[in-house]
Amino acid sequence: MRKVIQSLKVNETIKEHFLLTSLQTKLGKNGTYFEMTLADASGEIKARKWDLVEKDYQLYDVIHKELPQVVLVKGLTRQFQQSIDLKVFYIVYPDVETSISISEFLPSAPINIDDSFRELEETIASLQNETLRRIVREVFQLYKPFLPQYPASIHGHQGYGGLLWHTTNTVRLCETVIGLYPKMLNRDLLISGAILHDLAKIKDYKLEKGIVTKVTDKSKFVGHIVTMAYDIRETARVLNIDVHAQEVELLEHMILSHHGKGEFGSPVEPSIPEAFALHLVDALDTKLGVVHNLWEKTPLGEWSDWSKVLEKRIKKVTVEG
Amino acid sequence: MRKVIQSLKVNETIKEHFLLTSLQTKLGKNGTYFEMTLADASGEIKARKWDLVEKDYQLYDVIHKELPQVVLVKGLTRQFQQSIDLKVFYIVYPDVETSISISEFLPSAPINIDDSFRELEETIASLQNETLRRIVREVFQLYKPFLPQYPASIHGHQGYGGLLWHTTNTVRLCETVIGLYPKMLNRDLLISGAILHDLAKIKDYKLEKGIVTKVTDKSKFVGHIVTMAYDIRETARVLNIDVHAQEVELLEHMILSHHGKGEFGSPVEPSIPEAFALHLVDALDTKLGVVHNLWEKTPLGEWSDWSKVLEKRIKKVTVEG
Amino acid sequence: MRKVIQSLKVNETIKEHFLLTSLQTKLGKNGTYFEMTLADASGEIKARKWDLVEKDYQLYDVIHKELPQVVLVKGLTRQFQQSIDLKVFYIVYPDVETSISISEFLPSAPINIDDSFRELEETIASLQNETLRRIVREVFQLYKPFLPQYPASIHGHQGYGGLLWHTTNTVRLCETVIGLYPKMLNRDLLISGAILHDLAKIKDYKLEKGIVTKVTDKSKFVGHIVTMAYDIRETARVLNIDVHAQEVELLEHMILSHHGKGEFGSPVEPSIPEAFALHLVDALDTKLGVVHNLWEKTPLGEWSDWSKVLEKRIKKVTVEG
Amino acid sequence: MRKVIQSLKVNETIKEHFLLTSLQTKLGKNGTYFEMTLADASGEIKARKWDLVEKDYQLYDVIHKELPQVVLVKGLTRQFQQSIDLKVFYIVYPDVETSISISEFLPSAPINIDDSFRELEETIASLQNETLRRIVREVFQLYKPFLPQYPASIHGHQGYGGLLWHTTNTVRLCETVIGLYPKMLNRDLLISGAILHDLAKIKDYKLEKGIVTKVTDKSKFVGHIVTMAYDIRETARVLNIDVHAQEVELLEHMILSHHGKGEFGSPVEPSIPEAFALHLVDALDTKLGVVHNLWEKTPLGEWSDWSKVLEKRIKKVTVEG
Amino acid sequence: MRKVIQSLKVNETIKEHFLLTSLQTKLGKNGTYFEMTLADASGEIKARKWDLVEKDYQLYDVIHKELPQVVLVKGLTRQFQQSIDLKVFYIVYPDVETSISISEFLPSAPINIDDSFRELEETIASLQNETLRRIVREVFQLYKPFLPQYPASIHGHQGYGGLLWHTTNTVRLCETVIGLYPKMLNRDLLISGAILHDLAKIKDYKLEKGIVTKVTDKSKFVGHIVTMAYDIRETARVLNIDVHAQEVELLEHMILSHHGKGEFGSPVEPSIPEAFALHLVDALDTKLGVVHNLWEKTPLGEWSDWSKVLEKRIKKVTVEG
Amino acid sequence: MRKVIQSLKVNETIKEHFLLTSLQTKLGKNGTYFEMTLADASGEIKARKWDLVEKDYQLYDVIHKELPQVVLVKGLTRQFQQSIDLKVFYIVYPDVETSISISEFLPSAPINIDDSFRELEETIASLQNETLRRIVREVFQLYKPFLPQYPASIHGHQGYGGLLWHTTNTVRLCETVIGLYPKMLNRDLLISGAILHDLAKIKDYKLEKGIVTKVTDKSKFVGHIVTMAYDIRETARVLNIDVHAQEVELLEHMILSHHGKGEFGSPVEPSIPEAFALHLVDALDTKLGVVHNLWEKTPLGEWSDWSKVLEKRIKKVTVEG
Repeated sequence: MRKVIQSLKVNETIKEHFLLTSLQTKLGKNGTYFEMTLADASGEIKARKWDLVEKDYQLYDVIHKELPQVVLVKGLTRQFQQSIDLKVFYIVYPDVETSISISEFLPSAPINIDDSFRELEETIASLQNETLRRIVREVFQLYKPFLPQYPASIHGHQGYGGLLWHTTNTVRLCETVIGLYPKMLNRDLLISGAILHDLAKIKDYKLEKGIVTKVTDKSKFVGHIVTMAYDIRETARVLNIDVHAQEVELLEHMILSHHGKGEFGSPVEPSIPEAFALHLVDALDTKLGVVHNLWEKTPLGEWSDWSKVLEKRIKKVTVEG
Repeated sequence: MRKVIQSLKVNETIKEHFLLTSLQTKLGKNGTYFEMTLADASGEIKARKWDLVEKDYQLYDVIHKELPQVVLVKGLTRQFQQSIDLKVFYIVYPDVETSISISEFLPSAPINIDDSFRELEETIASLQNETLRRIVREVFQLYKPFLPQYPASIHGHQGYGGLLWHTTNTVRLCETVIGLYPKMLNRDLLISGAILHDLAKIKDYKLEKGIVTKVTDKSKFVGHIVTMAYDIRETARVLNIDVHAQEVELLEHMILSHHGKGEFGSPVEPSIPEAFALHLVDALDTKLGVVHNLWEKTPLGEWSDWSKVLEKRIKKVTVEG
Repeated sequence: MRKVIQSLKVNETIKEHFLLTSLQTKLGKNGTYFEMTLADASGEIKARKWDLVEKDYQLYDVIHKELPQVVLVKGLTRQFQQSIDLKVFYIVYPDVETSISISEFLPSAPINIDDSFRELEETIASLQNETLRRIVREVFQLYKPFLPQYPASIHGHQGYGGLLWHTTNTVRLCETVIGLYPKMLNRDLLISGAILHDLAKIKDYKLEKGIVTKVTDKSKFVGHIVTMAYDIRETARVLNIDVHAQEVELLEHMILSHHGKGEFGSPVEPSIPEAFALHLVDALDTKLGVVHNLWEKTPLGEWSDWSKVLEKRIKKVTVEG
Repeated sequence: MRKVIQSLKVNETIKEHFLLTSLQTKLGKNGTYFEMTLADASGEIKARKWDLVEKDYQLYDVIHKELPQVVLVKGLTRQFQQSIDLKVFYIVYPDVETSISISEFLPSAPINIDDSFRELEETIASLQNETLRRIVREVFQLYKPFLPQYPASIHGHQGYGGLLWHTTNTVRLCETVIGLYPKMLNRDLLISGAILHDLAKIKDYKLEKGIVTKVTDKSKFVGHIVTMAYDIRETARVLNIDVHAQEVELLEHMILSHHGKGEFGSPVEPSIPEAFALHLVDALDTKLGVVHNLWEKTPLGEWSDWSKVLEKRIKKVTVEG
Repeated sequence: MRKVIQSLKVNETIKEHFLLTSLQTKLGKNGTYFEMTLADASGEIKARKWDLVEKDYQLYDVIHKELPQVVLVKGLTRQFQQSIDLKVFYIVYPDVETSISISEFLPSAPINIDDSFRELEETIASLQNETLRRIVREVFQLYKPFLPQYPASIHGHQGYGGLLWHTTNTVRLCETVIGLYPKMLNRDLLISGAILHDLAKIKDYKLEKGIVTKVTDKSKFVGHIVTMAYDIRETARVLNIDVHAQEVELLEHMILSHHGKGEFGSPVEPSIPEAFALHLVDALDTKLGVVHNLWEKTPLGEWSDWSKVLEKRIKKVTVEG
Repeated sequence: MRKVIQSLKVNETIKEHFLLTSLQTKLGKNGTYFEMTLADASGEIKARKWDLVEKDYQLYDVIHKELPQVVLVKGLTRQFQQSIDLKVFYIVYPDVETSISISEFLPSAPINIDDSFRELEETIASLQNETLRRIVREVFQLYKPFLPQYPASIHGHQGYGGLLWHTTNTVRLCETVIGLYPKMLNRDLLISGAILHDLAKIKDYKLEKGIVTKVTDKSKFVGHIVTMAYDIRETARVLNIDVHAQEVELLEHMILSHHGKGEFGSPVEPSIPEAFALHLVDALDTKLGVVHNLWEKTPLGEWSDWSKVLEKRIKKVTVEG
């Protein structure tokens, strides 16, 4: 992972690859200039190129509708008002042979993908109820190839592995909760719901070159909650499992109700203890994930940016002593 | 339809069949007595039987868990505080040969069932889009046999034919709306949604002897909105229609979004004009149906009972002149 | 109606009359430039004039406080970032003899004004209750001369005829509703309310050269709902009708309650079925009008702009097949 | 004012006049008995009459629909569960010659009616703006004869003089507020609004024998806010004052907006400082009036009954020291 | 723990000790009778005693204001309408020598008190930050003697040990969460908050004979949140710890903000990740505790009673297979 | 107080001291220019300096992070679009000897600081309850030195003396309210609460050179409500007053509950009449203060700017006649 931006200082001349994520023409002195956003896994920086020449316009024509793109930039960092920006000398495509994966420039969840997959698959294997185990295994395999690239939320942490991280966290918290209420909670049902609950978000987000750039029409017309309910039904049918079997209907209910209330997108509310538990655990990790994302980007001792989701700022402190 | 109760006066001795809808033992003078509710299509009356004898207790044992039941009652109407009640002399099962259908005692929507079916089926036949027409016809046939008995809502009008009435009203209002916005609204899509939108309520309500007595587990675990989405998918599959065809997904969207907002049970909100139109028309007729039910039970010149749904009373007036 | 803007392509040199709706001086290369918005019935375009000369400043002084104005513009269309803008060569007042009505440049509701008036006046003539018919006819005549210019809402469709269109739609939907609930709804009362309910919006909006530019003080101090109640009272008095007659009070109630709830501006809530019906029908057409306005401006196959009123975007699709 | 009930103890035989406010027949031992509520200015007591005789039934027939009535009751107080009730020996109409005004049995606001009228009329006389002074004087005279009997609210303090008390409090608080913001607030406008703001409640409540028993149809169809706006208009017309004069429209605005928000019944929100001030002062005294009513009925050292308006209980404490 | 009630059948003659929790006189045949509620750890039963004799009235006088009391009851179980009640033959105080602790009749949380104390005290000992460890140990010792008797909530589970159970659950969930977000969360701070957050509820509830019977004045005047903040301050002072030390202020913040939002009683909202985590974990276990309480009282295969806190019912199912 | 800005006209050449409150570099013709905001007690003006020279950049480096600063500016007022701006010729620090206090440039509350202090201290002296009088006097002395500089709210009126003004208004309104409800309200308790209720806001705001620039961490971690509760406790302890004395706990309750509801920051809601009265009076003056601030900045006859707090505009009118 490339992490140059975070440690840039004023008045450095640099020549580096970055991910160009926005590019606009602006009107200024002596005609138009470019205003750009460059990113790597450690953050973003604003950059400006003046004195545009023919080659710049050619580049613009080729790439401004195909962002994000990896580009090679040479420039000088300057203090500009509250922050550092980059005065760009030139900007070019990297050589063909140096083709660099976009994923190198993206932040990623603090997990090991392979370990997480192993943990989840062992958890699936540990399910006692055969019907649930077969359905969950099948649906999970369906989504597994796409899972690592997806973030847990389009508003929250955009990182590679975010959805996988959230899924693993949800499963672990559910295991703790089962330990607290062992008589009330059926482990097979709760863990099955925990694994599948958010996977269909993969059909809600449009991934372009490893970055979620927008939501799909499907997310507006059907939504990941009903999409997963469809998947469970169809998987059951494919596996010759009765779609009206009690476990199948209860698993569908776990998925349909996991947002807790209609206003958050669930067509029905949790009606069994396992559905409540899944909803509460999902909400807890989702909110902590938002806090984590905010916290990561905040320097020590400072208040974070305003979070629209949390409707507040948080402070990053270290407890002394 | 039997309509005796509405016109009862004080001090009449009557001997009639009624629908017994509740029966409780109460402690009073000289031991326990029965407190009952008797109903017919025109309303309800409270009744009390004193001086219980062996036969009464036998009757109680047999029927108090199997209500509602048609019974034959002889008694005397009395003024009691604000209203009329019935002092019961005896209460018996009707003779076997006089077996009377419960439906005779139920209020019903002011429509002709056959005419309504004909109207809906002609409307289905008029749909231009073959995919939609085939799916709608098939799903409609699935529910048609059960449709007449169901009310439009468990809180609102309990009457026989209520769901059919609401469906027909929705279709007619949609036709008017299509006339007002002909360029914006696709008739096939809007009318298809109008016909199917509430049919799966039939799986939400438990019908016992022609009366909806409670909601089913399915209504809590899945709900009629997602149930109809499942039905459309499965019908398409049965008819060899691609479940990812645009019309199928849009029709699913019409159904999923027709409650307008998540807090009213829709997992997604209306995202095309036809979905908005269906939601608005459905809400209008649903609310007017509640007003109608309240208005029907209110004497001319009086304020109605308090309606929890409307959060108010209405006044039944006649405009003079 | 002039509809040039919608079909402009890049690199066209045009010389056309437009409606200039905004004009600002901006700081840029070689001093200030003008940033303008030009409109016709088919849409809007941004335009910029550089190299300002004395005549430009004279024009600015004369017209920048008197917008909108019809102007003659010569310029060249350019691709600029996501959209087309116009590089202006010159901008002048049209010759006196070519004086062109602003209304040619405005979008308008898809109705024929004369037909709508005829429809409404025939509807008024069909009212059976003489008191209502006389009051409605008189109040309608009061507002009729101003009616065609007004939009249905300052937030929604700004078009010429919008208020008349909404009034006609409301009447037609009420006729359908009366057909569905013929016993419950008094046609005279409901239709009278439908015709008058929004007319006093004409006193809420300030019209300048055929365009609603802002709301009046009266709309904040009294509001169109109470204003229409005053109008009914005063009209009754002028016509020697007892202001305490039942129909007059009920018609006032229809008007006062038609926004349904206090939070939407009604000092009292609907208390008779006709008042409910008017409220529900009015809300339905108002919301569909907002959807229509959004839909009209959206290219086929695209998601619309964000609508603050609907709190969402809609997609403009065509159903194939 | 009669205040017997508050000081009754167990096992007293009493023979007193009370106000009978409810009378119901109940089923119990040896047939029906009467369950009654008796009231005087100090509170209420439940009473029961057993062994009903012919005269009791005659009394019942005559008065149970004409309550409240003054009756003479002889009985014995008993401890019954948490509270005292009265075992009634006989209950009769008082002799014709002893006819006693119902108002003797009602709680009343802690003011002197004549002093309050004098204070308000002197305040009116002190208004500098002739137009406002003439309108306020005229409207006040219209309502003055009915004012003493009315409570400030049907939910709150039911007492004689309550509306007059609230009006006087509102005026006094407005005088203080004018002293705090003398440049911003026009005294004539604010005081005029303060005097008139609630007077039309007199048309909202139905008074039967000095007690507000229910709200009128007018309160539901038009409401006291719009009714007072009508009164101001018509009074201006009678006094040959231009109804479009600035003061008249602003005074109407004060009245229309004094509930602050649409959801509390105002068709427009306060748009001038004086309208805000009136709204805030009115809300303050209204809420303190509710607290006062609750506090009055609560014994020292106890928590009050639950107040639906305040959504809580208050504690009646004495600060020692 | 006594658990007789749960397994009672119709027509059993029993003679058992129960906890009498309510006792009322009612009017019925041949004078008054007693209506009682009897409880043990497995549930409640309604009981009635007829034919009251002198000794019954003496018992009533002595105990009806001092409930709950352990009593010895002999009676016969009967089917009455939907449920079983007990026809009481006699009811007496138990012999002095058989004095039985009320706690035997109370439901209790499914934990071992000693184990939980050991777990919490070992957790306290494991805190690295000395300031926090000393404060938490001291405050915990203050409340420890009273902790076992208290329930977690006056609305939820009333059982012995409930508050201790909830405290332990909160700590365990926090440990899991710390494992998921190890860099972001300071364990000392989060665990300190977890242990102390609800202890001051002990001052909010009034305990009478081991049962929480109502909330204290202190709970209304100050509340357990601010009370614990006071306790931390005063403990710091007693221990000669600077009350303005960073850890002390952050710990106060953890406590003050743990209800998450002002509307739930927190004067400030969570502003550091640990405060968010505590709030989310506390809310999760509190809600699951309510579900657990409901679930426990519901027979297998049935829907539970309506829960006002959850605003719904839950179904108790067993997953087959 | 300096009040130049309010009366500036177009085309005046001025040389004056102003408070520079913002300073930014912008990209424009011939390189960057300065965009500044200059303020005095009568308002603000935008200013621009072109043709930046070395001295300008030096000034920028020195002061742009230390704003606000008093500067001497020479320039020419110009009409620019809707408003006046200032074309700056030069901008310099004032001579050392002319050092001018920032407070001269700030708006201030329309009160005399000394008179207000005298009024509050006489009020404190008039308290009868010795415990309350001693605590209030001591806490007031603690905050008194800082009081004059603080505004009543960071969102509302920023003026010098604003908090003192609001405190005095609250006391005066409470005196009026005590006059209206003399039996219900204990003057000592209500007045004590009125004086102390907002003083701890002084610890919520960060004051830099006489201007509140932001809120403190303490305001987020503890908040002024709990801070004042701490102050009362600690002051009582210092004065050897029992912290559990009834008056002390009630005074704490007054402070803790004065925001009325949890959602506005009170951990407990008002539970005694005095707490209600303080809450209502505080809310009234706070809202009128916002209206006053808006009104002051609005020219006569105009609508004000949009107020986010009030969610509306107000109109500044003069009542004629």
